[in-house]
Amino acid sequence: MEHKIEVCFSPHQYSLFKKDKQVVVVVDILRATSAIVTAFAHGVSSMVAVKTPEEAIELAKHGYLLAGERNGEKLEGFMFGNSPISFTNQAIAGKKIVITTTNGTQAIHKAADSEALAIGAFLNLDAVAEWCKRASMDVLVLCAGWKDKFNLEDTLFAGALSERLLAGGNWSTRCDSAYAALNLWKHAQHNLYGFLESSSHRHRLQHLQLEDDIRFCLELNHFDIVPVQDRNGKLVQWEIPVDTGREG
Amino acid sequence: MEHKIEVCFSPHQYSLFKKDKQVVVVVDILRATSAIVTAFAHGVSSMVAVKTPEEAIELAKHGYLLAGERNGEKLEGFMFGNSPISFTNQAIAGKKIVITTTNGTQAIHKAADSEALAIGAFLNLDAVAEWCKRASMDVLVLCAGWKDKFNLEDTLFAGALSERLLAGGNWSTRCDSAYAALNLWKHAQHNLYGFLESSSHRHRLQHLQLEDDIRFCLELNHFDIVPVQDRNGKLVQWEIPVDTGREG
Repeated sequence: MEHKIEVCFSPHQYSLFKKDKQVVVVVDILRATSAIVTAFAHGVSSMVAVKTPEEAIELAKHGYLLAGERNGEKLEGFMFGNSPISFTNQAIAGKKIVITTTNGTQAIHKAADSEALAIGAFLNLDAVAEWCKRASMDVLVLCAGWKDKFNLEDTLFAGALSERLLAGGNWSTRCDSAYAALNLWKHAQHNLYGFLESSSHRHRLQHLQLEDDIRFCLELNHFDIVPVQDRNGKLVQWEIPVDTGREG
Repeated sequence: MEHKIEVCFSPHQYSLFKKDKQVVVVVDILRATSAIVTAFAHGVSSMVAVKTPEEAIELAKHGYLLAGERNGEKLEGFMFGNSPISFTNQAIAGKKIVITTTNGTQAIHKAADSEALAIGAFLNLDAVAEWCKRASMDVLVLCAGWKDKFNLEDTLFAGALSERLLAGGNWSTRCDSAYAALNLWKHAQHNLYGFLESSSHRHRLQHLQLEDDIRFCLELNHFDIVPVQDRNGKLVQWEIPVDTGREG
């Protein structure tokens, strides 16, 4: 059976793409979903994405470590911002983290009621593709964008994931956003950093001197895990089942 | 003084881009704005874009010829649909036309209160660029899209117009949508028809056997005029002033 892949450029437009029997991959390359993937790859037991700093602080009373960012900067009094590199730390193994960010956690909330939800980043690109294949259902890539607008880096990820699914023959698309993402990815993939040189958000982070973070977020397939939403709305880790391995 | 150019992929997102002191170029390549440009190039004296067929029929009582389309098909009892080729007819010279379409006229309405509004298409691309230069203000390209979603053909126009304005040195951008549009245009410009082969809307029109219309809509600079909105909300014709000619 053939499935569809579609791309939604902004949480603002999610209602136009929402449907039953569809899994959603949420992406916020710079930096929320890159950070979440990195945290799980370093042993975090679960994460909760919340909309406001106040909700995060409330959960901290129940043993959650605090991660939060607004407009690229760590929230005051929080242990972590959304720098993926700050999560490359074995001290977080076994811990629970609550996170709130400008765009990424808002996008996760929008899609929380979908059939299944996964967290995508370049860092776990192939693992996410594998998760989609095993879900064997229509896929929507929901880009977090920047304050409800389109952004380039999330779109490039959408193109990369589309390419992987379309190549297998079990997915097709009639979605112009997917075609655009795919086309941009094809021209950008060999120099993501250069391609994003002039992009709006890179400029924002450059200003904050986060070059190392940006380079890390643009690395492909560092981690073989996928954070997915469980029935209680928490993010937990999904791994490619060992018995069968990756189908490629 | 340097001006900004931004691109809004959908009328659904116009509120995020709306601001004072900004001119808006509305584009619906397949086919509303291509049709409007063609009609003016064949001597129509004025046009009014309305949201509903009922409003159009009301205006017909005041001497307006009726043009209307929904989902690619001409409305029953209307003289014209939105086929540009149907307007390549000298019999319309001096006439007034009221038009209502699925996407294009809706986009025109959204932006009706902007500082100035022009109708753009590949057919009048360079003339629109010239109009923007003379307006000498921030420019927003508002893509009509398809039922509030992103589409490829309007985005390619946005890229082509952005390229022309950015080349002059008086415009700059920090808008990721503009970068994406520009990049897509660079790769598509030498074979627009082929690039759009798989696009969603071309597929829709192909089904309706409108290949001639599509090829016509993708031709560049057939006409040297720009339909613009006057103070009463009507569309009237703007021409490059003869005394100075085009600046190039």
